Amino acid sequence: MNEKRTDINELGEFALIDTLTKKFTSYHNETIKGVGDDAAVISISEKEALLISTDTLIEGIHFDLQYTPLKHLGYKAVTVNLSDIYAMNGNPQQITVSIAISNRFSVEAIEEIYEGIKKACDWYEIDLIGGDTSSSTSGLILTITAIGRVEKNRIAFRSTAKENDLLVVSGDLGAAYLGLQLLEREKQIFNENPDLQPDLDGYDYLLERQLKPEARKDIIAQLYAFDIIPTSMIDISDGLASEIMHLCQSSQLGCNVYEDKIPLDPKTCTTALDFNISPVTAAMNGGEDYELLFSVRQSDYEKLITIKELQVIGHFTAKDNGIYLIDKQNQIFPIKAQGWKHF
Amino acid sequence: MNEKRTDINELGEFALIDTLTKKFTSYHNETIKGVGDDAAVISISEKEALLISTDTLIEGIHFDLQYTPLKHLGYKAVTVNLSDIYAMNGNPQQITVSIAISNRFSVEAIEEIYEGIKKACDWYEIDLIGGDTSSSTSGLILTITAIGRVEKNRIAFRSTAKENDLLVVSGDLGAAYLGLQLLEREKQIFNENPDLQPDLDGYDYLLERQLKPEARKDIIAQLYAFDIIPTSMIDISDGLASEIMHLCQSSQLGCNVYEDKIPLDPKTCTTALDFNISPVTAAMNGGEDYELLFSVRQSDYEKLITIKELQVIGHFTAKDNGIYLIDKQNQIFPIKAQGWKHF
Repeated sequence: MNEKRTDINELGEFALIDTLTKKFTSYHNETIKGVGDDAAVISISEKEALLISTDTLIEGIHFDLQYTPLKHLGYKAVTVNLSDIYAMNGNPQQITVSIAISNRFSVEAIEEIYEGIKKACDWYEIDLIGGDTSSSTSGLILTITAIGRVEKNRIAFRSTAKENDLLVVSGDLGAAYLGLQLLEREKQIFNENPDLQPDLDGYDYLLERQLKPEARKDIIAQLYAFDIIPTSMIDISDGLASEIMHLCQSSQLGCNVYEDKIPLDPKTCTTALDFNISPVTAAMNGGEDYELLFSVRQSDYEKLITIKELQVIGHFTAKDNGIYLIDKQNQIFPIKAQGWKHF
Repeated sequence: MNEKRTDINELGEFALIDTLTKKFTSYHNETIKGVGDDAAVISISEKEALLISTDTLIEGIHFDLQYTPLKHLGYKAVTVNLSDIYAMNGNPQQITVSIAISNRFSVEAIEEIYEGIKKACDWYEIDLIGGDTSSSTSGLILTITAIGRVEKNRIAFRSTAKENDLLVVSGDLGAAYLGLQLLEREKQIFNENPDLQPDLDGYDYLLERQLKPEARKDIIAQLYAFDIIPTSMIDISDGLASEIMHLCQSSQLGCNVYEDKIPLDPKTCTTALDFNISPVTAAMNGGEDYELLFSVRQSDYEKLITIKELQVIGHFTAKDNGIYLIDKQNQIFPIKAQGWKHF
């Protein structure tokens, strides 16, 4: 055979999606935004839009059942999807759940996953409205679609930031990645010597950030209460660097981000050093923090700083300026995305 | 360990979904219908509702790439989801696509799947609005979510049929199942002797019904044109018997279905006999026809019979009467669902 065969790794996920979807036509005026943001946007009335986001979690790729409790898996599968709806400045209301399982899972095991799903639904006040179950030849596959609502004039796209807007991040970064490193280390030790007990004492925060992340409903509610509309927004699933790149590329801007402003938990810092990783690297390239990265107009600064758990980390510049991290010594480094590569 | 372990096969898919979802609470007035119909229903205005349906297709479970062309797979993945929206008497407008693939697939292979997806989108006028790609440890997994619209007073639920309503089916049944039997037979012959060429001449119709099924957009349009609102509806994915049971159970009714009214293509009949299967059995228990099964008031009969490709196959009775198939000799057989069991 002479047919061309391009390896998926040559392209990468984002270029692949672009290649696959660019030929598609839009037939309906109701479709406001398709591929290329955290969620799709569908007009449902003059003032309101619906947000829809889908994610698939696959055993062995996105999670490892050797250290992921099933209940936490169900909880996390929901929150990572809700996070995409919040990242559009919307409020999720419903989810559908598709689950595929092999025979090695018992009914009780699946019930545990659903207990986690229910716990997240109750916490975030979400209705489970459908889905299907089927068997799988190997592992566990969970696909969740989240549906939310937003006022049209409050939608936060990735593409609408402006020069001089402030770049803001919620919570702290890098902890989920270090939680994963801890779990992987203990897994390896256990596999080499099953008699050794796992030593995860004192790492609760990092482990919880990895195993049971929360979506920032509270931040969206606060922004609403203070009448701040982000000029752009994205959730941090692939690491800060990758998300900064997305906002800059979508909005056709550059930016300056200040290393000493990046919010880090003390435990993230000490654990990173134990692993010989710079804490900032964990934040920039780690991923799975599910915090919000967004921009606001400078005129919103005074209102913004009254909201807890928000940190201004930089500002947007003209595109030609480039995308830079500025360290404590005022050295300038170009930011490159090194987020999760699942291929 | 003393923990209880119930095998999934003991329960079956529908009982499993019921067990998993019954504890969930509804938080939003906008959620009109959750689990238990072809699609979920969300109110978006006084008069309109949104329909959402998700399905996952897994290699080795739902399709076999040894005889399924990738382009057809993409096409079919879309149409089976659209079929769920039509089965609520709605019109699909958007889809999201999640695809998981192992490294053995090239970019060109994935592009072929998307060509099929695009072909279906163009034919049915559907906007692709999102999705994600990720890697899979083994096979190919395709999850599609379809989104549609419907006027609230035209929604066809499964649960709203009434006694004496006529039971109607579109197209003909059993062909997709026989198409699958043909493909499986040729696969076995090929695997035993790769030098033998497949002998599928003259079976185009059956193969197309299996590999490239269509969703009945045309029937929904005709029902609209003739102002017929089905009193209940479902699409035939698991075989006529299983779908009749769903309508009867959801609507708390019995029914009489007449064997000689079940629409069969001549090729279905001759091929079924070649396989030593009764053609009616192929229709009742085969599945994957993606035709519509619905009910109408008797007063709509005159309008109904002017629509092509519809066949009245029976009528609903009181629940106590039971669910029966009546054969040409007036013998009465209770209908039992023996649809696809994917576990």
